[in-house]
Amino acid sequence: MNSNSDKLRSIMQSKEIIKVGGAFDAMSAKLVENSGFDAIWAGSFSISAINAVPDASILTMTEFFDAASKMAYACNIPVIADCDTGYGGPDNVRHLVKKYENAGIAGISIEDKVFPKQNSLLENASHELLSEKDFVEKIIAAVESKQNENFLIIARVEALISGMGMDEALKRASAYEKAGADAILIHSKQQTPDEIFQFMELWDGDIPIVVVPTTYDNVKIDELISHKIKFVIYANQTLRASHASMSKLLSRLVNAKSINEVNDMMSTMNDIFKLQDMYDTQQNIDQKSNQ
Amino acid sequence: MNSNSDKLRSIMQSKEIIKVGGAFDAMSAKLVENSGFDAIWAGSFSISAINAVPDASILTMTEFFDAASKMAYACNIPVIADCDTGYGGPDNVRHLVKKYENAGIAGISIEDKVFPKQNSLLENASHELLSEKDFVEKIIAAVESKQNENFLIIARVEALISGMGMDEALKRASAYEKAGADAILIHSKQQTPDEIFQFMELWDGDIPIVVVPTTYDNVKIDELISHKIKFVIYANQTLRASHASMSKLLSRLVNAKSINEVNDMMSTMNDIFKLQDMYDTQQNIDQKSNQ
Amino acid sequence: MNSNSDKLRSIMQSKEIIKVGGAFDAMSAKLVENSGFDAIWAGSFSISAINAVPDASILTMTEFFDAASKMAYACNIPVIADCDTGYGGPDNVRHLVKKYENAGIAGISIEDKVFPKQNSLLENASHELLSEKDFVEKIIAAVESKQNENFLIIARVEALISGMGMDEALKRASAYEKAGADAILIHSKQQTPDEIFQFMELWDGDIPIVVVPTTYDNVKIDELISHKIKFVIYANQTLRASHASMSKLLSRLVNAKSINEVNDMMSTMNDIFKLQDMYDTQQNIDQKSNQ
Amino acid sequence: MNSNSDKLRSIMQSKEIIKVGGAFDAMSAKLVENSGFDAIWAGSFSISAINAVPDASILTMTEFFDAASKMAYACNIPVIADCDTGYGGPDNVRHLVKKYENAGIAGISIEDKVFPKQNSLLENASHELLSEKDFVEKIIAAVESKQNENFLIIARVEALISGMGMDEALKRASAYEKAGADAILIHSKQQTPDEIFQFMELWDGDIPIVVVPTTYDNVKIDELISHKIKFVIYANQTLRASHASMSKLLSRLVNAKSINEVNDMMSTMNDIFKLQDMYDTQQNIDQKSNQ
Repeated sequence: MNSNSDKLRSIMQSKEIIKVGGAFDAMSAKLVENSGFDAIWAGSFSISAINAVPDASILTMTEFFDAASKMAYACNIPVIADCDTGYGGPDNVRHLVKKYENAGIAGISIEDKVFPKQNSLLENASHELLSEKDFVEKIIAAVESKQNENFLIIARVEALISGMGMDEALKRASAYEKAGADAILIHSKQQTPDEIFQFMELWDGDIPIVVVPTTYDNVKIDELISHKIKFVIYANQTLRASHASMSKLLSRLVNAKSINEVNDMMSTMNDIFKLQDMYDTQQNIDQKSNQ
Repeated sequence: MNSNSDKLRSIMQSKEIIKVGGAFDAMSAKLVENSGFDAIWAGSFSISAINAVPDASILTMTEFFDAASKMAYACNIPVIADCDTGYGGPDNVRHLVKKYENAGIAGISIEDKVFPKQNSLLENASHELLSEKDFVEKIIAAVESKQNENFLIIARVEALISGMGMDEALKRASAYEKAGADAILIHSKQQTPDEIFQFMELWDGDIPIVVVPTTYDNVKIDELISHKIKFVIYANQTLRASHASMSKLLSRLVNAKSINEVNDMMSTMNDIFKLQDMYDTQQNIDQKSNQ
Repeated sequence: MNSNSDKLRSIMQSKEIIKVGGAFDAMSAKLVENSGFDAIWAGSFSISAINAVPDASILTMTEFFDAASKMAYACNIPVIADCDTGYGGPDNVRHLVKKYENAGIAGISIEDKVFPKQNSLLENASHELLSEKDFVEKIIAAVESKQNENFLIIARVEALISGMGMDEALKRASAYEKAGADAILIHSKQQTPDEIFQFMELWDGDIPIVVVPTTYDNVKIDELISHKIKFVIYANQTLRASHASMSKLLSRLVNAKSINEVNDMMSTMNDIFKLQDMYDTQQNIDQKSNQ
Repeated sequence: MNSNSDKLRSIMQSKEIIKVGGAFDAMSAKLVENSGFDAIWAGSFSISAINAVPDASILTMTEFFDAASKMAYACNIPVIADCDTGYGGPDNVRHLVKKYENAGIAGISIEDKVFPKQNSLLENASHELLSEKDFVEKIIAAVESKQNENFLIIARVEALISGMGMDEALKRASAYEKAGADAILIHSKQQTPDEIFQFMELWDGDIPIVVVPTTYDNVKIDELISHKIKFVIYANQTLRASHASMSKLLSRLVNAKSINEVNDMMSTMNDIFKLQDMYDTQQNIDQKSNQ
């Protein structure tokens, strides 16, 4: 059925660590694919950012879904969609799993915060957790709703983000595994990987572990591997590179004597035409005129 | 009514040349605004590119409209929407003018190619023009449909692109002015501004002229001013900077020992939070918790 | 600014009772307008129903917004949008008020249940209320976000639905008025209007009262007027007539010897053409061919 | 892969004539399914009508696609989408086939008019045909783009509508079969089935024939069978029943003394709840509270 889910499981068999590159639209997703990453992360922070709204459940499931399904449509590697809190209760999760799987997305991640959520890395923000029992119900709803066994359901544990501590994190991770989650995303906002590594030492579950080293960006990929972490998500680096380069280009361009002053910062028109398969279109047209 | 159209007309009064920066989503539009440009160009080439489809009328009006209206919603400077051929005949144009004006977009551009179109800069592509009479009907439909006199209707002349020559370009520009267009966009794919300058010398119309120096990027802005060109559109530089920086970052990141190897290429999380007004949200929440 | 909000306020001045007809798409909205109702109710139950999903916060704000804005775009009488619980917390409400007002919708209703909600008339369903304090914050967020003073914010009290009693209903209605609501919708699922009338006798606030007599459908409009009720919403009768007629027609049609057996149940093609302004299009085309 | 296409082919094997009921949203599609029809027609006339815009290529592919994919998502019988002219040239058709097949739609119909089109039954309208050669290219593009062989591509011949006569109709039907179309829709706006029957007598192709007896509604289904017609589309009867019943109900309701005066015209709330699977939601919630 959903061959993208199957592909993702197959990569999980063959690779020591799965590198998942963050994207926010079809072009960034294709660039992730073209650069050799294993999968694409349709991240809610980045998708909110390109819409210029806070990462605070302001965009709706419809808009996040639309972005992720455009990526799945454009790319050949699996897309994993960041679904925040699941956008409501178990019935919303049921609905979303059906919708995302149907669109060829390979898996989703849902997190155990209350809706509407705050970005996990925002200082001084409220990171109230949903009760374990209520989140388990969402996982059960997700698991029951998938049609292809291989559709990947990642349960994201926010206990370390919210300050509830390591024991709570481990307890929740176990409960989520028992409820049927296919993987656990353990999130941290520390500047070092210490608490993540501590989690890995104490964790005795059987399902793979996912991390997002945005703040502890000095961690070596080799260290993640040696700690038996299975997925590393490079969640928002593409977004931040895009933001940086456009900001810099625009500040030069607004006062430039001529446009060619910024040529060193830009891809050529042909680079973009290639990404768009524009020459395929042209070829079709050429064939037509030669008929 | 539509204060963005009014703003645009007011800028036209006060500025020697209007600098219009190209954008493709709300974030790039806000960056254009923040960098000091006068207006935003919601360009169909760039919007097609981020959707990873050819710039060949593959995306529909609905999708282009959605992109442009998100920009207008997020920004305080006027947005001008590139509406390709108008997506059909005069009735389609009538419908689109009502829709775009209603969404707070300040103006539109429609071009005199046949639908579906090819990108003007694609080598060896077909650039068949619509008959002058048929395009004049579209302009009349557009003019009749606007509610605020200040909503800007730009007629884009593709005669130089299609190889029909200067006389045809001038004849069409005059006909479009007579039909009620508020400005003429004269497009060229030459490497120098010579034919644009020749057009300016021969043109004796009263409405402002718009140019898009993507290929003749060595032209000095001062030369445009001295040739009495009123609008310069920097159509796709943001897109090409974004594409270049993401491509480069991803090729480094996929083999990086740790993420911080690419930190020099990225904005910080805080830069993005600011763009999203994330701290406003947080402030609302802080106020709430202090009540 | 938003002339539809102004129109609605003006109708409130001139009419004893405002009759608001329920709609779920642009056609049903236009039929409501054509039949002489004062305003249109873009109801979430009906909009959910035509999407064949439960009225349980399954559709997102994006989809409800899309439906309501299409109605506002197609019609000349004011549209009031049923926004359920506001689709989240105060920040979501802030965002939605800006979006709905911007689209020419005349007002919204938000209700004091927890998200995700259940339909108020569903037997045995959970109708848990949000705390008064938390809902007041949503009203304040809504009031602060409107740009035109006349944009109508209706606070819907679900205390009688949830079984919390008359005192709670009155207490909440007063708190919501104090928070800045422009009207109170007091909802009831009883078969008679008794508790609504009791509410009206005890209510001493100054803002207008709105009712939705779906279950107490025997109430006389004159009685509503004599109890000083200002708005009556005919929330879902169009939907139910559409459902009934299509069900009946289809069961006949599937076994009909010929289609004309069901002609008595249908409008003509011309009736539909008129609703679509199809002849305007044709007229434009005729003018064109005569030029 | 696309099991809905497979289902449709299987029905074609087992049934003498395929009855396809017209729908315009998920609810009408489910009612078509519940009434025992074999398949659903997502018709562009009806979908335009509920959006209150002319059936003249005003809605875009995006909007028609959205409507059809919601039907496919909600229903278990195959959905065939009316794709007008294919919304452009061969590249647009390529794109649409990929998109529609991907969304679980079982087949599409494209017609040989020029874009933007006029409704075939509109009096005095222009029904200009595309050249046979250009339409053949669209069929080839469609056939090349399908992934599941069973995805059904219907080529709609408008020669009888446009007044080009029977020979042209037969010639085009043959050319379209040769180009790879899976079925031919021969359309007529006469009040009797005579020209359709004449076409059937002269037609010597091998692929199935589809008819839409909107105007010759007196034709017996048995006569269609005896003339070897394989598909009959009841394109817009649901829409016209919905329109008729709402118009009648609203004209009574606006002056009714109480709502219950129109109860005879309406389904109950429970009928709608059942269509929405509202009780499934409730059951989930009950299970939850009993845990």
